[in-house]
Amino acid sequence: MKQTLLFVPTLRDNPKEAEVNSHRILLRGGYVRQLAAGIYTYLPLAYRIIKKIENIIREELDKIGCSELLMPAMQPRDIWEESGRWQDYGKELVRLKDRHDRDFCLGPTHEEVITTVIRDYLTTYKRFPLALYQIQTKFRDEFRPRYGLMRGREFIMKDLYTFHTEDGDLDHWYNEVRKAYQRIFNRCGLNYRIVSADSGNIGGKSSEEFVGLCDIGEDTIVYSDESDFACNKELCDLPEGAPSPDGKGKILHARGIEVGHIFKLGTKYSLPMKAIFVDYEQKQKPIIMGCYGIGISRVLMAILEQHADENKVVWPQEVTPFQIHILPLDKEGTPAFELAQELYEKLNKDYEVLFDDRNERPGVKFNDADLIGINHRIIVGKKAAEGIFEYERLADGFKQDISDLNELHELLKALRMFGDFKTGRQ
Amino acid sequence: MKQTLLFVPTLRDNPKEAEVNSHRILLRGGYVRQLAAGIYTYLPLAYRIIKKIENIIREELDKIGCSELLMPAMQPRDIWEESGRWQDYGKELVRLKDRHDRDFCLGPTHEEVITTVIRDYLTTYKRFPLALYQIQTKFRDEFRPRYGLMRGREFIMKDLYTFHTEDGDLDHWYNEVRKAYQRIFNRCGLNYRIVSADSGNIGGKSSEEFVGLCDIGEDTIVYSDESDFACNKELCDLPEGAPSPDGKGKILHARGIEVGHIFKLGTKYSLPMKAIFVDYEQKQKPIIMGCYGIGISRVLMAILEQHADENKVVWPQEVTPFQIHILPLDKEGTPAFELAQELYEKLNKDYEVLFDDRNERPGVKFNDADLIGINHRIIVGKKAAEGIFEYERLADGFKQDISDLNELHELLKALRMFGDFKTGRQ
Repeated sequence: MKQTLLFVPTLRDNPKEAEVNSHRILLRGGYVRQLAAGIYTYLPLAYRIIKKIENIIREELDKIGCSELLMPAMQPRDIWEESGRWQDYGKELVRLKDRHDRDFCLGPTHEEVITTVIRDYLTTYKRFPLALYQIQTKFRDEFRPRYGLMRGREFIMKDLYTFHTEDGDLDHWYNEVRKAYQRIFNRCGLNYRIVSADSGNIGGKSSEEFVGLCDIGEDTIVYSDESDFACNKELCDLPEGAPSPDGKGKILHARGIEVGHIFKLGTKYSLPMKAIFVDYEQKQKPIIMGCYGIGISRVLMAILEQHADENKVVWPQEVTPFQIHILPLDKEGTPAFELAQELYEKLNKDYEVLFDDRNERPGVKFNDADLIGINHRIIVGKKAAEGIFEYERLADGFKQDISDLNELHELLKALRMFGDFKTGRQ
Repeated sequence: MKQTLLFVPTLRDNPKEAEVNSHRILLRGGYVRQLAAGIYTYLPLAYRIIKKIENIIREELDKIGCSELLMPAMQPRDIWEESGRWQDYGKELVRLKDRHDRDFCLGPTHEEVITTVIRDYLTTYKRFPLALYQIQTKFRDEFRPRYGLMRGREFIMKDLYTFHTEDGDLDHWYNEVRKAYQRIFNRCGLNYRIVSADSGNIGGKSSEEFVGLCDIGEDTIVYSDESDFACNKELCDLPEGAPSPDGKGKILHARGIEVGHIFKLGTKYSLPMKAIFVDYEQKQKPIIMGCYGIGISRVLMAILEQHADENKVVWPQEVTPFQIHILPLDKEGTPAFELAQELYEKLNKDYEVLFDDRNERPGVKFNDADLIGINHRIIVGKKAAEGIFEYERLADGFKQDISDLNELHELLKALRMFGDFKTGRQ
């Protein structure tokens, strides 16, 4: 893609409203624009990353037998009366009236809707189990939205609901989803831990949180630097530096970002909403449910917190907005620009390539490229007249002069073999 | 995918609330479920089709240099005051207040938001042109929602906005988008015509509608059966059967479905919202805009109106929910089921395959398969013991016994060569 057509409105100075680094990078790098408190537009660069995260989630959930659907944002009051949450939810629920003066809310979660969707169908044990998810825009009227996409009023979530005839089957699916979540967050390049959690507004029997390790966010967790051990601060008084209880590594504390949450709901919604099935002995029983969320906009924030410093980000390979960034250091009509354009046209067939075709000074191009954060970079400068360009890797600063396109192809092929590229085009 | 996990809650009887065939099929075939008037859940089968339509749109728009972003649904009143539409829009605009008693609306279109997003960036002629689109959920509080997804209150739309320094550039992009729309609707398998149209609530200088030909919908158009000639009923009094003015074919009348609408907005939004740039002579001028919509949920309805009869649909190849449907006519443990399962596991590597693994009678399976509408079908019945199964094509009823998997592969390969398959996996 040509950078002139991409719309990446980078800012020269640090925006004042951003209190944390990820939020600063999002604004300075032209990733998002605020429309109102806690309400953002995802600009093309951020939205490419969001779609990659979404597709990783789709792949991993489809693999274990989940099906995707899409439920509405506008939900009528009556189903929230059935579950009892119309009263319970408080001011964070966005409420409105339609032109006929009927009450609606904008869904912060979809337990009520999914229960009405399946309850006429899941009437016999023969039709179980079922696992349905959506990737959708959610609404929560936060009193004080903050940290950019961290605590927004309109945000993108993946919510999955599973349906079972007995606890054992819920346990089985819960574990399958838990493993799928681990694969998802690993592929996103996140350093995270799993901790037991409070079920909050959703309710249910037991739940676990997936927490991205970083020093912003609203959870404090106690974890080991060398193993999976992790615990909520309230449940665990191990001091920093103490040996981890599993004997591996030492204890650290962090205010982490909750990126995922999985719940064994049990019959919390099926009982009041009369979602009943007939078992193999012809007995009527309430459906047993699980629900599982991933805050997709938050995953983006957590990745940034872990992969960015003040002026630079290096996106993990599976979520990078593009795979190769080509920077000619001279303007149109020069040997540098022409060689860069030739490389762009050739590489764009096999990779996702961003071509900085703007008429800007090299300093501006490098600053912007650091904020855009594509790991593999091709710089075409003065040596272009001799047919020489430079390959540079942002993550470790590795550089190499290359004079032959085949040489570059070999280099990129080797990287691909080591799993450093995955492209949907292959 | 195994059908037991897909969630396709078909209905045996015709639902009373459906007045038109497409709506009937959507409900009977387990494609959608209504939550409130004009508000629907897209079940997995419909959502697979929706995602295919979305990806066709993405491919064709990206090809001409458009970039995708995502804007919020919740929009603050102040930007609608700037454009003057807060007063003008009337009761179809869904309005609400946040917890701090501030006014918001849920976007029916996004001219105001996109103008605020680009106006700080498009301040010099050097940064033009720009073309930004989103695929997003829109809200319109219809007085009388009807015909299923035809006139809903919450619906999926693609909206594209282009930005120019002069009318000539707008004309150029308008024509490029117009051609992209033709490719999009052709790929969706739609029979449509383009007619000049009223600009309605959006405003602007001139506009054209893309109308899917069928006997439901709210537009009456006059068109030729053999050429591109088409006209709004109000602008054209040619009677049915008359020769078309271009000499090709004869005139027909239809109440069609508006699936796309393209507008030359000019400065309607940039002037009141002060979206100003400096031209190459250092003169200040208002940005010239175009906007272009596709009603994605409506495309689904229009395809259904054209490709379904009362009990059966045959989805066009590029939007089919799956490419091959395998139906064993006997239950698990029988030779028919085992051969079907073997075929499923082999074909699923190269095609999108739906495997009807339900323990249902053949009659139920065939009825449901007709409603699911996958053109290429493999039926495994009594001859399975001899290793024989049947290939059947829904569109033309072609049938062939096959005893060798290689034979099937050859058959499918030949179909693929004739463009009858396109799969993202290739």
